[in-house]
Amino acid sequence: MPTGSALRNACPQPGRPERGASFHEMWRELLPIGRHPDSGGYRRYAWTGADADCRAWFRQQAEDRGLAYEVDRNGNQWAWLGDPAAGDAVVTGSHLDSVPDGGAFDGPLGVVSSFAALDELRGRGVRFARPLAIVNFGDEEGARFGLACVGSRLTAGQLTVEQAHRLTDGDGVSLPQAMAAAGYDPDAIGPDKERLARIGAFVELHVEQGRALDLSGDRVGIASAIWPHGRWRFDFRGEANHAGTTRLADRRDPMLSYAETVLAARREAELAGAVATFGKIAVEPNGVNAIPSMVRGWLDSRAADQDTLDTVVGGIEKAAREYADAHGIGLDVVRESFTPVVEFDHALRDELGRILGRDTGLKVPVLGTGAGHDAGILSGSIPTAMLFVRNPTGVSHSPAEFAAEDDCVAGVRALADVLEGLACR
Amino acid sequence: MPTGSALRNACPQPGRPERGASFHEMWRELLPIGRHPDSGGYRRYAWTGADADCRAWFRQQAEDRGLAYEVDRNGNQWAWLGDPAAGDAVVTGSHLDSVPDGGAFDGPLGVVSSFAALDELRGRGVRFARPLAIVNFGDEEGARFGLACVGSRLTAGQLTVEQAHRLTDGDGVSLPQAMAAAGYDPDAIGPDKERLARIGAFVELHVEQGRALDLSGDRVGIASAIWPHGRWRFDFRGEANHAGTTRLADRRDPMLSYAETVLAARREAELAGAVATFGKIAVEPNGVNAIPSMVRGWLDSRAADQDTLDTVVGGIEKAAREYADAHGIGLDVVRESFTPVVEFDHALRDELGRILGRDTGLKVPVLGTGAGHDAGILSGSIPTAMLFVRNPTGVSHSPAEFAAEDDCVAGVRALADVLEGLACR
Repeated sequence: MPTGSALRNACPQPGRPERGASFHEMWRELLPIGRHPDSGGYRRYAWTGADADCRAWFRQQAEDRGLAYEVDRNGNQWAWLGDPAAGDAVVTGSHLDSVPDGGAFDGPLGVVSSFAALDELRGRGVRFARPLAIVNFGDEEGARFGLACVGSRLTAGQLTVEQAHRLTDGDGVSLPQAMAAAGYDPDAIGPDKERLARIGAFVELHVEQGRALDLSGDRVGIASAIWPHGRWRFDFRGEANHAGTTRLADRRDPMLSYAETVLAARREAELAGAVATFGKIAVEPNGVNAIPSMVRGWLDSRAADQDTLDTVVGGIEKAAREYADAHGIGLDVVRESFTPVVEFDHALRDELGRILGRDTGLKVPVLGTGAGHDAGILSGSIPTAMLFVRNPTGVSHSPAEFAAEDDCVAGVRALADVLEGLACR
Repeated sequence: MPTGSALRNACPQPGRPERGASFHEMWRELLPIGRHPDSGGYRRYAWTGADADCRAWFRQQAEDRGLAYEVDRNGNQWAWLGDPAAGDAVVTGSHLDSVPDGGAFDGPLGVVSSFAALDELRGRGVRFARPLAIVNFGDEEGARFGLACVGSRLTAGQLTVEQAHRLTDGDGVSLPQAMAAAGYDPDAIGPDKERLARIGAFVELHVEQGRALDLSGDRVGIASAIWPHGRWRFDFRGEANHAGTTRLADRRDPMLSYAETVLAARREAELAGAVATFGKIAVEPNGVNAIPSMVRGWLDSRAADQDTLDTVVGGIEKAAREYADAHGIGLDVVRESFTPVVEFDHALRDELGRILGRDTGLKVPVLGTGAGHDAGILSGSIPTAMLFVRNPTGVSHSPAEFAAEDDCVAGVRALADVLEGLACR
């Protein structure tokens, strides 16, 4: 577990596995990998050394438990219990890579909980009626090549080989070059329908990236849908000039229109109950004594439904055009990416609710989420579902990301119950 | 001259020199150096290859004219006519380095005009009663090491050797390393009082960086003072978080406080008749789907007098604190540099006015400026003055910076008249 004090004050834990590392041992091994000493955040980017260390850890977990280990054509790692060729497999897992200076839980909690849930089921002595697999999807966060969920997108055919081959990182290294440098064959990548056809259900456990469970007082929830979301690039073009000598009346300063648009985005999102964020900016020439010639801002916006999102982004763009026109600023708005709403499989979602409510009779909360996930990508191909574990602050993609140990343990129990309910009938 | 059409439609030009390149030839040689093919702007940064090419050009101009060439301990270049040791020298010149993607005129117009004015005076057959020198001050723009006027500051003792040795560029290369790589001895730098003691007057010609002459209809003006100016760094510290999943109410987004402060700066400057600019920004982590943990913005502000500047910057900081407090954002404001008002020598300024008004009886306009110059740095040590040449758009520090050929020629004539009036009595 990520904190020493949490370790010492351990609540009821998943039982020690017959073979392989315990829940605590898995965390202890994983936590130092790719952690930046200054920020305390994780920098586990696809096909880097830290990523290789995470992958070695995954393989070791699989082999220690006697699972059949394999890497698919797109670099995703699999650990199988039972014969994959038998079909109708139940698969769980998540990812091990991180955003820049990300937290310890986003991704790894799902992978560690998967192994711990298998250990728990073995401890219960259950008999598996379907093949079971644990998966680590590659490059989920897209921190290096700018596109999220590359491993699952390729597998599902939602990213073509040509598109993937054109991806480059900030240093100009292409995805194929990065894969080859890490010892993988970039010519092998592509859709993997045969593999998907063997999977009957995919369940991804993930730390919640919001405070819905904290507000409702529940440890674990079930995902309903991933909000539609997109990224838009706003290029405000003015005129470079000397900041000390140019009269205000003679300026065409794009920073002003950008600033007004940032505030408009907040207002529009508030009005609609959506989210809108300008978190990335590039300024030219970006000199202290230079009025910028160009301010480029990226808008990330998400809402519970398509109409709301259209209203929010349309309102922001309209405001930006008015501000730009008023100051003689040129404006181009380009939609760089867009993902429609993803509804998780209703039957699988309801089955998870029945399984988790069986003992208590309580209704497990069902939540929407603004974040993308591999489970969302795969939902177009196979039945998928997600479990969320409570996040007391809602903070994620930050070193401050946190989940309490007893909530993590409750997540493992819930995942074990779900896997038992699905695979041990 | 910077444009082909201007070359062909040449107005009355300075006479062809007996030796050395003509006005047009000097521009033709200088214009390709350090010009970026995409932006069309100049990237002549201190101690780089483009800088070395500019310096070689200067040396060639000096030697072609039979002037005694020397480089001082701080890397500034000098071309002497007459014996420097005689004292009471009249010095003219400017700089050849540029801001990132700067224009053709800022700096080079003063150096080219200095050589052309000497050629003009030789053509007039005048007899020099005082030593004359033309100077190219190093690293005036501060584009590489972040501090302007390094060459003149060192010479005047306004920058200590220890401070200079600590300067580093964006790649972590220190100023001493950069000087050594360019073949200069960084251990030699330091104040040069003996050299300054030999100078009786320094006159710098510069393209105007505003529209005062355009609005008054004059080709040439005389500087009165350089406005007090400074740079302040505003660090807005919030909390990194997921842009898709964090409720607006749970956010501490420093981009909002930054945007509000950008707009407040414009309002405060407008109210006071000053200028205030946020032209440089650094965002962490600067990811499209991340609420920033930190937004750092640099404010450049200048006003005609100290009280006004204090009012403007005080008003901006007060507004920024209110915005930050309202959103749970931490704010640090650091004054990174400050230059008080610089009044040019009144006697020298008045003498320039008399010389330039002698033939026409017209009053030459006297203007303040918001830009710093080597002449401003040296004004604390020796009598200095500046001539400005009309800029029809006011644009500077941009590839669009421009001065008409006939105005440039008028500038050369005015500088020749001034040098004759000062040095040929």
